[in-house]
Amino acid sequence: MRSPADPFALPNHGGELSLAAARFGQPADGWLDLSTGINPFAYPVPVLPPVVWQRLPDSGDDLSLREVAADAYGINDPDLIAAAPGTQAILQLLPRLRPFSHVAVVGPTYGEHARCWGNAGHQVTPIETLDRSTSADVVVLCQPNNPDGRRFEPGRLLEIAEIQAAKGGLLVVDEAFVDATPEISISHLVRPGLLVLRSVGKFFGLAGLRLGFAVAEPQLARLIRQALGPWAVSGAAMAVGAMALADQEWIISTRRRLPQEVAALNAVLGRAGLTVVGGTPLFTLVNASRAWALYEYLGQSGILARPFATSPRWLRFGLPPDDAARQRLVTALENWT
Amino acid sequence: MRSPADPFALPNHGGELSLAAARFGQPADGWLDLSTGINPFAYPVPVLPPVVWQRLPDSGDDLSLREVAADAYGINDPDLIAAAPGTQAILQLLPRLRPFSHVAVVGPTYGEHARCWGNAGHQVTPIETLDRSTSADVVVLCQPNNPDGRRFEPGRLLEIAEIQAAKGGLLVVDEAFVDATPEISISHLVRPGLLVLRSVGKFFGLAGLRLGFAVAEPQLARLIRQALGPWAVSGAAMAVGAMALADQEWIISTRRRLPQEVAALNAVLGRAGLTVVGGTPLFTLVNASRAWALYEYLGQSGILARPFATSPRWLRFGLPPDDAARQRLVTALENWT
Repeated sequence: MRSPADPFALPNHGGELSLAAARFGQPADGWLDLSTGINPFAYPVPVLPPVVWQRLPDSGDDLSLREVAADAYGINDPDLIAAAPGTQAILQLLPRLRPFSHVAVVGPTYGEHARCWGNAGHQVTPIETLDRSTSADVVVLCQPNNPDGRRFEPGRLLEIAEIQAAKGGLLVVDEAFVDATPEISISHLVRPGLLVLRSVGKFFGLAGLRLGFAVAEPQLARLIRQALGPWAVSGAAMAVGAMALADQEWIISTRRRLPQEVAALNAVLGRAGLTVVGGTPLFTLVNASRAWALYEYLGQSGILARPFATSPRWLRFGLPPDDAARQRLVTALENWT
Repeated sequence: MRSPADPFALPNHGGELSLAAARFGQPADGWLDLSTGINPFAYPVPVLPPVVWQRLPDSGDDLSLREVAADAYGINDPDLIAAAPGTQAILQLLPRLRPFSHVAVVGPTYGEHARCWGNAGHQVTPIETLDRSTSADVVVLCQPNNPDGRRFEPGRLLEIAEIQAAKGGLLVVDEAFVDATPEISISHLVRPGLLVLRSVGKFFGLAGLRLGFAVAEPQLARLIRQALGPWAVSGAAMAVGAMALADQEWIISTRRRLPQEVAALNAVLGRAGLTVVGGTPLFTLVNASRAWALYEYLGQSGILARPFATSPRWLRFGLPPDDAARQRLVTALENWT
């Protein structure tokens, strides 16, 4: 997983600047990294007091963080929440908490779900549409979906969660990119049969912080807390996460800003003849007849987009951080033939 | 694990200031927390650049960190290392990587080892002395031991690792407190059958950072990296950890300072009639006929020591952070009858 990978293979994840440098060389102007869906207008992190680094966060700190998250997500009980060093940590352990299961992953979607369930020995089947009559023990989807931005009707998800609950199954809804469109979130509606994942990294632009949450019925949330063990979340993630999640002013203005930013990005991509086929306020998916060649061309120009090994016509772009960056993309695309 | 615990039960861990406040009330002068073995003379953390919070650490960052750790620990290959958000994360997942095992834990020792192996369904047996003829599949010990500071002869540990390797077993050596006495570390001597854990939190006084390492043969180290998954360690832990582990000047002066600090602490405890029965440069263990009553009395004075539910005569003290704190302990002990 973390060993040096083949730089000439397509990357498995966005943000792999080390691999990009191995493939394309280090760009003279530095990377313009558009390969992730991380908000480039990040929550401003203040200077932290030394205690954040020095003290072992205790169970009271963990409870306080879960209370802040409960408030932020409209959840009435912090015992429905488990805090983790990034939702990836939950993806890694969740498959170990279930006996052998048939797992249906609604895709194409974020690859780590299928990878983690598969690595733990479960039988994973990719499915294209959400089917209420599924025989799968576990159904996994992303709301909105990454990379195409597909949305699922919340009422339908709750209905499927109930069907799953009735047979001892589980619906996993990864809301990593939901913060910009909270009206489609169901994290405040968790019930038996439903597990919702929330991330701090994307919307708040704090991917390096490593903070995410699982929301589930109390028994499952407790099981996840136990599997994570004590002190899973760093002092800095606790302090900064609590600030960010409670900062309504920043959240509201960011929810207003992101759709404008993605519209400006889409305009640039459209003028270059690329067809936007989906997205969220944090990223855009385009269809390009030679997407891998365009990825290669942009990479040579120091601009990193996100190709997909399984979808040779897709390329995903994150938000440029400023006008100069957007102009750099414009210039590169103008010279693309 | 992280739910609010009974404040009148003895704590399972040091550093539980929330539980202490629930039990003893919030002290007027603030807590003097001597309940951990965390160095109070912490590595100074500089202001970090925003990129540390914003960027998703990539596989190159992970490799760089492992290279720094390899240098610091005298290990010739970073592929022998897995970086984790605290060694506790490794304790949590390690038992899931082995089939049902008989696990012998040399104790009394740090409680999380037995707890984690037991929670994962293995059969855990506490043993008092290290026995080369053990039939256990997994042998776990802390070097030096916490809380009594007991040391194991490195050559003997290597011999037992080889015996374990020959039968497909494992020796787990938790070197959480070894940094002050590197001459007894065997992390640079890993081989089949041996897993060594190294922590950044204790010696560097950065427990809130959440950074620790497993050192093992390449296959096992890779298995642990895969179980942790990508982006397990925060950007801040990577940046600060790399600085701290490479700062030879700070490390050498801290190795010189800690024995002096613990000697001063031992003098205070000795003058109060307490018998030092063990320890390391980061903590001291005393024998007191009424240890739980003394814990209670000190707690009422806002001084938190570490009692042990299974050892009613033991109390562990960490280093006071300055002369005023040491004097506060002196004064409290003078009034203890």
